[in-house]
Amino acid sequence: MTDQFDPLDELSRHRTSIDNFDAALIHILAERFRKTKQVGALKAKYNLPPSDKGREKSQIEHLRKLAKTSDLDPDFAEKFLEFIIREVIQHHNQARS
Amino acid sequence: MTDQFDPLDELSRHRTSIDNFDAALIHILAERFRKTKQVGALKAKYNLPPSDKGREKSQIEHLRKLAKTSDLDPDFAEKFLEFIIREVIQHHNQARS
Repeated sequence: MTDQFDPLDELSRHRTSIDNFDAALIHILAERFRKTKQVGALKAKYNLPPSDKGREKSQIEHLRKLAKTSDLDPDFAEKFLEFIIREVIQHHNQARS
Repeated sequence: MTDQFDPLDELSRHRTSIDNFDAALIHILAERFRKTKQVGALKAKYNLPPSDKGREKSQIEHLRKLAKTSDLDPDFAEKFLEFIIREVIQHHNQARS
């Protein structure tokens, strides 16, 4: 019995998984932004401060820990959260103007 | 019966959801990077081209469509994929050197 390993088949299988992960990421991100829109509206209505540095710091610490336990680079997890928060702030500014 | 709405309680509930979404994102990202590491190793072993512009174009188109149907800004979905791909390329370069 020969072992017919085709690297292109294997690549295609990996890519299907990657596409599934990306679809999951997009749907969770969509729901996350729906939530931050609600937060933005709540803060505007009740005059709550737009940003909370203490909250951001604890979010970063928590995500770095989660990253470590799940074999993800903690620096990437932090960069990722910063990328998302920048987008949220931009959305809030657009909503205000 | 009075309606005792506390905006800070409501904010705290939203934040718990956001933290749950972030934890899900981190875990899926961890798994996605484990996959792209396997892809990198496969490409190196079988001398497959490191990047595939046709693949990237179809990934972007697909994610933009998914974003539209899930109420996420398609431009953000594209920026997000570019952010991830930049990180993957950096990982591949580090692995090679």
